Amino acid sequence: MLQNITGRWGVLVLAALADGTCRFSELRRHIDGVSERMLSQTLQNLERDGLVRRNVLTTIPPHVEYSLTGLGSRITEPLLALITLVEESVPEIVAAQTRHDRAG
Amino acid sequence: MLQNITGRWGVLVLAALADGTCRFSELRRHIDGVSERMLSQTLQNLERDGLVRRNVLTTIPPHVEYSLTGLGSRITEPLLALITLVEESVPEIVAAQTRHDRAG
Repeated sequence: MLQNITGRWGVLVLAALADGTCRFSELRRHIDGVSERMLSQTLQNLERDGLVRRNVLTTIPPHVEYSLTGLGSRITEPLLALITLVEESVPEIVAAQTRHDRAG
Repeated sequence: MLQNITGRWGVLVLAALADGTCRFSELRRHIDGVSERMLSQTLQNLERDGLVRRNVLTTIPPHVEYSLTGLGSRITEPLLALITLVEESVPEIVAAQTRHDRAG
């Protein structure tokens, strides 16, 4: 389960949906480099885990929207806090890697 | 980087070290099912990222101890909070999966 959430695309989908409801095409534009197939698979996994809600609008043509469920929101919040912390720590991590690789 | 931290063994190593310094053999006992090779690789990745400190004690025979660095502690704290939340959500997630799989 943690892998579904913290996998590369899972994180990016949850982060995108934290800003609000998105259509599939919007998610694809939002998430750089994701293939249609990977995005579809990621959304299915997150939907199955009850983190993402898939809503089919009966418009013509029909539209599919995705949003976070209550559970999805509760988990996404500390997940994004962790991501932000890791992102902020990147310079420190890269410095550690450089020291480590120099030391052999 | 996030994968090193949230990978199956990475999480378990960080969680074990959050309780204090451990030797390799203690970590292996602590982390159910990890092979010597996987544990060694996981520790090397976390050490390279600057999250784990490897300390060689000049005892006879020499002992190697592992502990969290300051950065490791700062990241492990929200990581464990996330894990706890996901663990607490397991019944809700399993219920969602069951509903999903029944609906086909």
